[in-house]
Amino acid sequence: MLFFTQCFGAVLDLIHLRFQHYKAKRVFSAAGQLVCVVNPTHSLKYAPTRCAAAQASTEQGILPPCHHHEAVHDPQLVPCTCPLFSCPWEGHLEVVVSHLRQTHRINILQGAEIVFLATDMHLPAPMDWIIMHSCLGHQFLLVLRKQEKYEGHPQFFATMMLIGTPTQANNFTYRLELNRNQRRLKWEATPRSILECVDSVISDGDCLVLNTSLAQLFSDNGSLAIGIAITTSKVHSSEAEI
Amino acid sequence: MLFFTQCFGAVLDLIHLRFQHYKAKRVFSAAGQLVCVVNPTHSLKYAPTRCAAAQASTEQGILPPCHHHEAVHDPQLVPCTCPLFSCPWEGHLEVVVSHLRQTHRINILQGAEIVFLATDMHLPAPMDWIIMHSCLGHQFLLVLRKQEKYEGHPQFFATMMLIGTPTQANNFTYRLELNRNQRRLKWEATPRSILECVDSVISDGDCLVLNTSLAQLFSDNGSLAIGIAITTSKVHSSEAEI
Repeated sequence: MLFFTQCFGAVLDLIHLRFQHYKAKRVFSAAGQLVCVVNPTHSLKYAPTRCAAAQASTEQGILPPCHHHEAVHDPQLVPCTCPLFSCPWEGHLEVVVSHLRQTHRINILQGAEIVFLATDMHLPAPMDWIIMHSCLGHQFLLVLRKQEKYEGHPQFFATMMLIGTPTQANNFTYRLELNRNQRRLKWEATPRSILECVDSVISDGDCLVLNTSLAQLFSDNGSLAIGIAITTSKVHSSEAEI
Repeated sequence: MLFFTQCFGAVLDLIHLRFQHYKAKRVFSAAGQLVCVVNPTHSLKYAPTRCAAAQASTEQGILPPCHHHEAVHDPQLVPCTCPLFSCPWEGHLEVVVSHLRQTHRINILQGAEIVFLATDMHLPAPMDWIIMHSCLGHQFLLVLRKQEKYEGHPQFFATMMLIGTPTQANNFTYRLELNRNQRRLKWEATPRSILECVDSVISDGDCLVLNTSLAQLFSDNGSLAIGIAITTSKVHSSEAEI
């Protein structure tokens, strides 16, 4: 009898270890879709001045818009686009991805459709969940931000940016989908270029916006699953119908 | 020459009159879909006490939940569910529709898919746009509300309620869709029963929520077109995938 009890205990331990192993892995596949578990990062900066300059330049059609350091003379250089830190790095658009991976340790995923599983949604604002997504020959940055636009009322903002120019961004459509508790919320839009600055996109509210109660309804055990799909742009056929 | 000029003027007048006629009609058909032009109504009441009692009863599974007047002894009576006014009317669920039509002059539309065109979105909160929708043998109440949850920051809340019991409501799914400016926002959910009180649904934020900037992006000339579709419920097939 003791033998069977010990065997049962060992099996339970193995199951527990296996579960921990999967939990620890940041990327795994479930139900045929690539699921990426993304842990939150406390934002160390909110530097509106950097973004204000970037936005002003973008509106005037000047590229690269985020470039406003007088000391640098190469107009092809762009500043670090990581929304987490005030980073002094500047470089060409082609090397932004490797900078984000190496310096800011942002993961990159492959695949046209993935599930972004943001953990610990209850943590206090400001908080960011960030991942890069490689798809259709381009790299995209998905940012989920918890922020208090109105004091005491945190909201969640989710957007997708192309690590490329606004012209390139116009060739794509991204979709974010939440689906749980007999509710479904879908947001489809053209990704904005990373040169336009993620902070201004979020402060304009031109993204998927969730209040806390809705985020809770879509969450499971403190984690929010966002289905992501990227396609090449086509005219929204039903736009004319409405 | 003068004759032709006068003829041309007369034709222009006729076109203008025809346009005015269509504009004045509250319901017309465009692009194969029934479009309902809904003008805003300034809300005369916000009575949370009535709704708090209703919600408490619903949570306990007692029906009809909004009934809490001691003077009335018939448990089948429900109070007026019009979200616009504090109305003393009470009656059976079956006659709520005729009360809303006759007393509160809320229009009713037929059709599985309609477009709700809310005008004058710029008017200050609190404001309501309301229509009834007859479909699949039942009547639904669509409420779009502009309200300031956070002072100085008006938001738009849209929800659909079944004029029936919560059990009946579980048999349906409604979809609200906004589509404009290369952005698309879809909200799908089970309609709530009108017995649950629209005010509490909106204050919980368990509905389609739009901030002002997003509402402007989806608006055309001050009007917001919301595509509405109602279907009988089925399990959300992709829910298991995420």
